[in-house]
Amino acid sequence: MKMLINTPESVVTDALRGMAAAHPDLVVDVENRVIVRRDAPVSGKVGLVSGGGSGHEPLHGGFVGAGMLDAVCPGAVFTSPVPDQMVRAATAVDSGAGVLFVVKNYTGDVLNFRMAAELAEDEGVQVATVVVDDDVAVTDSLHTAGRRGTGGTLFVEKIAGAAAAEGAPLDRVAGLARQVVESSRSFGVALSSCTTPAKGGPMFDLPAGELELGVGIHGEPGRERRPMMTAGEIADYAVDAVLTDLRPRHPVLLLVNGMGGTPLLELYGFGAEVHRVLGERDVPVARTLVGNYVTSLDMAGCSVTLCQADEELLRLWDAPVRTPALRWGC
Amino acid sequence: MKMLINTPESVVTDALRGMAAAHPDLVVDVENRVIVRRDAPVSGKVGLVSGGGSGHEPLHGGFVGAGMLDAVCPGAVFTSPVPDQMVRAATAVDSGAGVLFVVKNYTGDVLNFRMAAELAEDEGVQVATVVVDDDVAVTDSLHTAGRRGTGGTLFVEKIAGAAAAEGAPLDRVAGLARQVVESSRSFGVALSSCTTPAKGGPMFDLPAGELELGVGIHGEPGRERRPMMTAGEIADYAVDAVLTDLRPRHPVLLLVNGMGGTPLLELYGFGAEVHRVLGERDVPVARTLVGNYVTSLDMAGCSVTLCQADEELLRLWDAPVRTPALRWGC
Repeated sequence: MKMLINTPESVVTDALRGMAAAHPDLVVDVENRVIVRRDAPVSGKVGLVSGGGSGHEPLHGGFVGAGMLDAVCPGAVFTSPVPDQMVRAATAVDSGAGVLFVVKNYTGDVLNFRMAAELAEDEGVQVATVVVDDDVAVTDSLHTAGRRGTGGTLFVEKIAGAAAAEGAPLDRVAGLARQVVESSRSFGVALSSCTTPAKGGPMFDLPAGELELGVGIHGEPGRERRPMMTAGEIADYAVDAVLTDLRPRHPVLLLVNGMGGTPLLELYGFGAEVHRVLGERDVPVARTLVGNYVTSLDMAGCSVTLCQADEELLRLWDAPVRTPALRWGC
Repeated sequence: MKMLINTPESVVTDALRGMAAAHPDLVVDVENRVIVRRDAPVSGKVGLVSGGGSGHEPLHGGFVGAGMLDAVCPGAVFTSPVPDQMVRAATAVDSGAGVLFVVKNYTGDVLNFRMAAELAEDEGVQVATVVVDDDVAVTDSLHTAGRRGTGGTLFVEKIAGAAAAEGAPLDRVAGLARQVVESSRSFGVALSSCTTPAKGGPMFDLPAGELELGVGIHGEPGRERRPMMTAGEIADYAVDAVLTDLRPRHPVLLLVNGMGGTPLLELYGFGAEVHRVLGERDVPVARTLVGNYVTSLDMAGCSVTLCQADEELLRLWDAPVRTPALRWGC
């Protein structure tokens, strides 16, 4: 499998050099693998820190900036960052108002962020943590106790980031983040495996003519494999899985997410089918985002995330944001 | 090859339904295949119209909105739209100030936009046309007399769109668009073929372990095939090809573009190498954009576009834009 890389070992370092070159609003510590917004710490503001294994770009580094995250620490591909990175990030962004860790629910990430929280508290940083577990496909998985964290992370980081930007205190920002977690559900589908740089080939075998329903963002197995389905059939299955778990009482924010290898032309067609199903199920859609946001390297496939949004969440979603991958209103 | 589609025949129609559902700022005429910004025609403003074969998303439909294009007409995959679509688009956006057609240099597009210009003039719309031919890889190609139009189109549409938004008259908008064409050069590389829905398999054969240097955005052959190269070697080759043709007298706008199937993690690493080469060649970079903007379905690969930007072009590049795929300042 051909890749646009120098060496498998340098992939993350090279990408960080590229982030530094492309985004002067960010300070990228390539050696220590921490990306921080240039104007951090912002006086009086709660700091938002996230991170996780690389390979899901633009998550998380593409979400650093005004109105969203203050810092992230990328690990090796599909590997948790280490506590030292997280402590560096926390101390870099803490203005005295405290720091919120946004953690996707994978065992390594949860353990390392927990250790980092203790170390940061030792250095005088007040830390709150929210764990994102929005993927309804399976309970317990290859790297996870409980549900996996996937597309809902984008909604948590945007909405909590907006609240922090408005000056909300740490308990309020953390409370909103937890509300978004409780309000968000996702379901993903793989049409192909992804290719990891270290392996240089497919991460898992998916026979020609089959798809994996409920796949994780590291190629973790889902609920079942079936013969290939149409976009409409996939939308029926994915939306049903989500709505079996979440009956929205408010209009939803909809993320039609690409896993990295599926063309935008196809994602929009899939998005049309998701809208059709939501219409049939009487779920009004307040906002729609279509694109590659929470990816799995070059995996072909997609995921659907719904977040039921009351007026306050919708207002915070619409609030200005200025990051490499999400930008509006400023 | 598995695709996230309903049928090969419905791919473009389904994507247009998805655009309509996701973007309330746009009016999508699915039957006639025209996308128009909802507030068109904007009083006193020159209208910008583009279009071409589908399969290059977000180009062009993702660039419709305030500060960029007023309307686009997507053709079938890798197939020119027809004059009737272009005339509909032109008459929908003409406020009386005239319309600029932005046309990528492929024979079918050029002929059809020429015919459409005549038909629109018959209906009282003043039309100017700019043809984009920024790809330095080859002269004359499968579907092209002269050079192909690729990544430079994004710079033309953004900068001319900003000038039109400021109220510049048609001759000024067209003149700026031509200046951007003259100031822009691109070079593309394929690591894999793309898969067209109609064929359901690879569009061309690229042996394992080889890459195509100078590929077009429809899989057209480039300059040569070589054994697989590193990201650094590809950056050396691509930037050298561009700078052999363009010696910038001003800082450049840099587009590090993905062809659709290459992960963003790899694109950023490639962007770091492009910055390295430009530094070695003493070419200052004013702005960098990294992502999938001018794609070729699921092709793995990348392209580099430079646009030398004097102060006026840079100011217009930075001006507010609000489209599905490019958005800042508003």
